[in-house]
Amino acid sequence: MPAPLITLTTDFGTASPYVAAMKGVVLQTNPDVRLIDLSHSLPPQDLRSCSFFLRNSVPYFPDGTLHVVVVDPGVGTDRAILCVDLDKQRLLVPDNGCWTELARAMAVKPEVVKLTETRFCRPFISSTFHGRDAFAPVAGHLSLGVRPHELGPPVESWVDFTLPVPRISAKLFEGEVIFVDDFGNLITNLPGESFLKAFDRILKIQVGEHAVTRTVRTYGEASLGEMVALVSSAGTVEVAEVQGNASHRLGAQAGTPVYIQLYAADERG
Amino acid sequence: MPAPLITLTTDFGTASPYVAAMKGVVLQTNPDVRLIDLSHSLPPQDLRSCSFFLRNSVPYFPDGTLHVVVVDPGVGTDRAILCVDLDKQRLLVPDNGCWTELARAMAVKPEVVKLTETRFCRPFISSTFHGRDAFAPVAGHLSLGVRPHELGPPVESWVDFTLPVPRISAKLFEGEVIFVDDFGNLITNLPGESFLKAFDRILKIQVGEHAVTRTVRTYGEASLGEMVALVSSAGTVEVAEVQGNASHRLGAQAGTPVYIQLYAADERG
Amino acid sequence: MPAPLITLTTDFGTASPYVAAMKGVVLQTNPDVRLIDLSHSLPPQDLRSCSFFLRNSVPYFPDGTLHVVVVDPGVGTDRAILCVDLDKQRLLVPDNGCWTELARAMAVKPEVVKLTETRFCRPFISSTFHGRDAFAPVAGHLSLGVRPHELGPPVESWVDFTLPVPRISAKLFEGEVIFVDDFGNLITNLPGESFLKAFDRILKIQVGEHAVTRTVRTYGEASLGEMVALVSSAGTVEVAEVQGNASHRLGAQAGTPVYIQLYAADERG
Repeated sequence: MPAPLITLTTDFGTASPYVAAMKGVVLQTNPDVRLIDLSHSLPPQDLRSCSFFLRNSVPYFPDGTLHVVVVDPGVGTDRAILCVDLDKQRLLVPDNGCWTELARAMAVKPEVVKLTETRFCRPFISSTFHGRDAFAPVAGHLSLGVRPHELGPPVESWVDFTLPVPRISAKLFEGEVIFVDDFGNLITNLPGESFLKAFDRILKIQVGEHAVTRTVRTYGEASLGEMVALVSSAGTVEVAEVQGNASHRLGAQAGTPVYIQLYAADERG
Repeated sequence: MPAPLITLTTDFGTASPYVAAMKGVVLQTNPDVRLIDLSHSLPPQDLRSCSFFLRNSVPYFPDGTLHVVVVDPGVGTDRAILCVDLDKQRLLVPDNGCWTELARAMAVKPEVVKLTETRFCRPFISSTFHGRDAFAPVAGHLSLGVRPHELGPPVESWVDFTLPVPRISAKLFEGEVIFVDDFGNLITNLPGESFLKAFDRILKIQVGEHAVTRTVRTYGEASLGEMVALVSSAGTVEVAEVQGNASHRLGAQAGTPVYIQLYAADERG
Repeated sequence: MPAPLITLTTDFGTASPYVAAMKGVVLQTNPDVRLIDLSHSLPPQDLRSCSFFLRNSVPYFPDGTLHVVVVDPGVGTDRAILCVDLDKQRLLVPDNGCWTELARAMAVKPEVVKLTETRFCRPFISSTFHGRDAFAPVAGHLSLGVRPHELGPPVESWVDFTLPVPRISAKLFEGEVIFVDDFGNLITNLPGESFLKAFDRILKIQVGEHAVTRTVRTYGEASLGEMVALVSSAGTVEVAEVQGNASHRLGAQAGTPVYIQLYAADERG
């Protein structure tokens, strides 16, 4: 049987010793664990990015993986730490909603426990670094076989976080950029399915002040430097500059509005 | 027997969920695999950097390592995906030439197969993310024992990519910067061997508009802040500022011309 | 028994093939090893950061971990390479003092050996990349069971590096910023214990030219955007902007002076 898998997702960056200390504590608790870095460069305290990130990575992991997430604007407040079971994926997260979009996307009823048994934490819990003092040792214990219900009581309510919801009507899709990837591609919240269905009736696509004139099914249909709209790997509409940086070129970022205007079926020119 | 090793090299960055999703899919296919990050911060779609990177890292790995490389300006076009055997190193790469300099450096005849058996891919292959939908699951299957010939037919031709070749004559070496490392050191394509042979006859070294007056065998011969030429760890001439950033100081980057002018053996002053 | 753990800490960045080549050589020497990235983004050649980093990460690892550290302004000089045993943690480091604060913090007498047996290195040791040619193969051999005394003679003296020491008096604490983390939090060298003892008598906190008016025990006591002083996870005073970047806002960096002025016990207003 392969050693247990624990993934790490933080906004710590890697120039500081924080990620390293967390890895040390997990391994000190269970030297057998296999650690997988998901990201340590999420934008600081940015729940929107974290939510998008988890929704588009966690479901791909094997059953039984434990995902430790420390994007935690509430460190040092009394926000809870939750252990969340989503079918076969388990998460250890701050109670700030970073995981609720993921749960909706996976369409599973979460089983949630609130950490109260501090005996699974380090003896002294600092007020600034719960990653090292609580998340890491608890993750280690879970990987050793501790069951969620041993960590604390089940809870039925928690902080919910929702990514912005688009408005889809017969002649207009209204949404926004919800994530900008490292290439500068703009991932929107407009559903790819609606886009494909309306593909031949698109009149105009607008990102902030800028028009995007080309719609394609794959990058291969467009030329170097062209600005195109297509379906992203997350299943929503993406606006991209072929081998370029759409975010820089359009001055767009998370939150920038995106509109797709359609011809009605009968007025198409 | 240790678990199979798969290395990952991409230009994805780590703020997006792309690397994480790839890791998930590899592990979902073969939970036993050991994943090694080589880099996720190669410059986007930059074949020159990727080519240099692979040539100077892949040969150091143990026999049987599988290297997954997704620097892929052609995603969404009909460029092929290749499985390449170079003696004991195996690569899974887009057919864009990123690996051909490596093959020449290793001086082995490559055995190349083109991926056509999509049953080793994820059921739906998106047009924007072959890393997750093709490379990762195929890598997982290879690590489980699938043989390259099961992936598709052998091929005898592929896209070739060559790093720029220097011109070496009796009194002049003409080359260019082919890679700038994170320290700002300028790695050129001028052969270190020629440099060392001519070491006592060097009249002038020029990087773009700037002269480099000092040639050394190791950094230890120079002082803090001095600009020096010496043999890089890649075996070619490197121009570096001792504990500084030569790229910033000389305004040089990949492509900047580099000249070394020699005295003839008999005209040395 | 789990496979041996080797951690890697460098200032190489990850756009160059240097980290990848080191990983390859370690695994080529011992394919069984488990590699853990601590950081590859330490500021180039910055012993202060490296010293702080090691002191706040190494002690959390399980017994028997080998930590390979290549922050090495002296590469290409005749500085030695040391194998250092600190109780149950082992380090392979350049002899530049990066580890001596750690040893003091762990309060253990180090056992130090100087690498002279080049048969444990790669056959040709380049003058620019000891990470690949000496550190990595020696680490591999140590993980295979080679004993430190086989690497070379024990030594009783080495380069010492000390982080700046604060001055603590009855009415004034004088220190400085010794580390800025990726959030922009300012970690000082002022002891948290003294800060907490004097907590109710603090008259004024100054970072460079700027006053910090709020002292808290946890972030939860302050509001978004407030600038606060509290005890850091390293046990010293930290100055932070709640969910913001104190370094940017105060223009402070490593070396910026920090003062805490106290009321005397009897003159408190």
